[in-house]
Amino acid sequence: MTRSVFFVSDSTAMTSKGLGRSLLSQFNVTLSEHLRPYINTEERVDILLNDIHKTHIEDGDAPIVFASMMDEKLMNKLSQGFAGVIDIFRPFMPTLERLMDKKSSKEVGQAHKVGNQHLYQKRVAAIEYTLATDDGLKTTDYDQADIILLGVSRTGKTPTALYLALNFGLKVANYPFTSEDLPEFTLIKAHLENRHKLVGLIISPERLLSIRRERRALGSYADPKAIAAELAALNSLFARESIPFIDTTTRSVEEIAASIMAISPT
Amino acid sequence: MTRSVFFVSDSTAMTSKGLGRSLLSQFNVTLSEHLRPYINTEERVDILLNDIHKTHIEDGDAPIVFASMMDEKLMNKLSQGFAGVIDIFRPFMPTLERLMDKKSSKEVGQAHKVGNQHLYQKRVAAIEYTLATDDGLKTTDYDQADIILLGVSRTGKTPTALYLALNFGLKVANYPFTSEDLPEFTLIKAHLENRHKLVGLIISPERLLSIRRERRALGSYADPKAIAAELAALNSLFARESIPFIDTTTRSVEEIAASIMAISPT
Repeated sequence: MTRSVFFVSDSTAMTSKGLGRSLLSQFNVTLSEHLRPYINTEERVDILLNDIHKTHIEDGDAPIVFASMMDEKLMNKLSQGFAGVIDIFRPFMPTLERLMDKKSSKEVGQAHKVGNQHLYQKRVAAIEYTLATDDGLKTTDYDQADIILLGVSRTGKTPTALYLALNFGLKVANYPFTSEDLPEFTLIKAHLENRHKLVGLIISPERLLSIRRERRALGSYADPKAIAAELAALNSLFARESIPFIDTTTRSVEEIAASIMAISPT
Repeated sequence: MTRSVFFVSDSTAMTSKGLGRSLLSQFNVTLSEHLRPYINTEERVDILLNDIHKTHIEDGDAPIVFASMMDEKLMNKLSQGFAGVIDIFRPFMPTLERLMDKKSSKEVGQAHKVGNQHLYQKRVAAIEYTLATDDGLKTTDYDQADIILLGVSRTGKTPTALYLALNFGLKVANYPFTSEDLPEFTLIKAHLENRHKLVGLIISPERLLSIRRERRALGSYADPKAIAAELAALNSLFARESIPFIDTTTRSVEEIAASIMAISPT
């Protein structure tokens, strides 16, 4: 069963999307997603309502709409034009105003202003560092790292490092152990000098084989025996050196990143 | 005024963080943020409650807690242990169950399973493409791009491209116009052949000067006259060739990315 869902906001709509997806994940239904950011005029609400109605007719089922517009007039227009609108903002405001002991400002597009300028610079610097130290480059710069990811090829090191840099402004180096380092993997001097920053990534042999086969089917790169040897050496290294590690087998990039944040000292 | 806030969940806590930040942005208060993912056992709730109480004593003010745990026992334990807990999940469930005409599954950690495996591969491919075509590299591969960003140095092309690749699995190339291309910027063949994928990034001269000064203070790179010439040539190019563009001056990476999604054909 597929259900259409609209994520709507006067800003990026990423909050609507995040919460909407989390909630809908509880209903075991395939989603057809429509992102509608910057719905900040009556004209745009009209166009959106038109889209929603068209989708309703095509689907048969009514779309679900998650919306967060600060302007009450726009929110009311949307809610009165279509029954399936869930306002993800207003239900919390009375509680929050009580806890904060003040009224909300009801201003549009405030969400990203929280520490914005500073975070922007920090993120850009973090992305530059992360790119410059991708895949074992510039190990001489490891003293500047917040986190150093260790793993074999195709365990999600680069996406995870970039996600942490983009979302948290962390400088994340990543270092690959390869079949050339076998029969044993050993830490290099730059690792030893930054030991508390090391986080390992492990993965099941089956999953790694499937990822590598999709990438390059031939040679030892996607050979089950070679993969087993690499993963055995990696597990042995993490155990021997007491390096904390995350299993990436069934996890998304967000989940791997959150797990790293949970065990990392930063 | 600084207020401590905890973002809590049995999964990554990114949804709690996204919604919590959006809501709190309406209160004009500086936040001291604590991310607490994977609170999925009673022991972890106890440790968290302890943290919250310590912070309460240090701050004087009670922290605000945004939480989304599927397990009702854990959520109740947290809510009863501390008064300032806002459950960001349950208020919506009755409405959503009515709209979906079925009960929710109440399973933990479902959020990222929505289209997970496929999205993972798509994202990794998108990141690889985006890195391979960063900063004007591999213009021969522009036929594979979803979006091609155009701009001068330090307008946020790389972070924006990576954000779109990571979050939406889009292949985003970026191409820099530099002072060497002056007095006029012109499109190259690869641009002309992929004209509908082009999106420009513009920025105010003041903001660009400040960003570049922080980066490298000397030479024409951070000279107001040189910057004015680059931006004039860029604006003229976008007007002449009818290229849609986004002003990045006061926008975060999320906002730039959402604006691009809103105008892009993909």
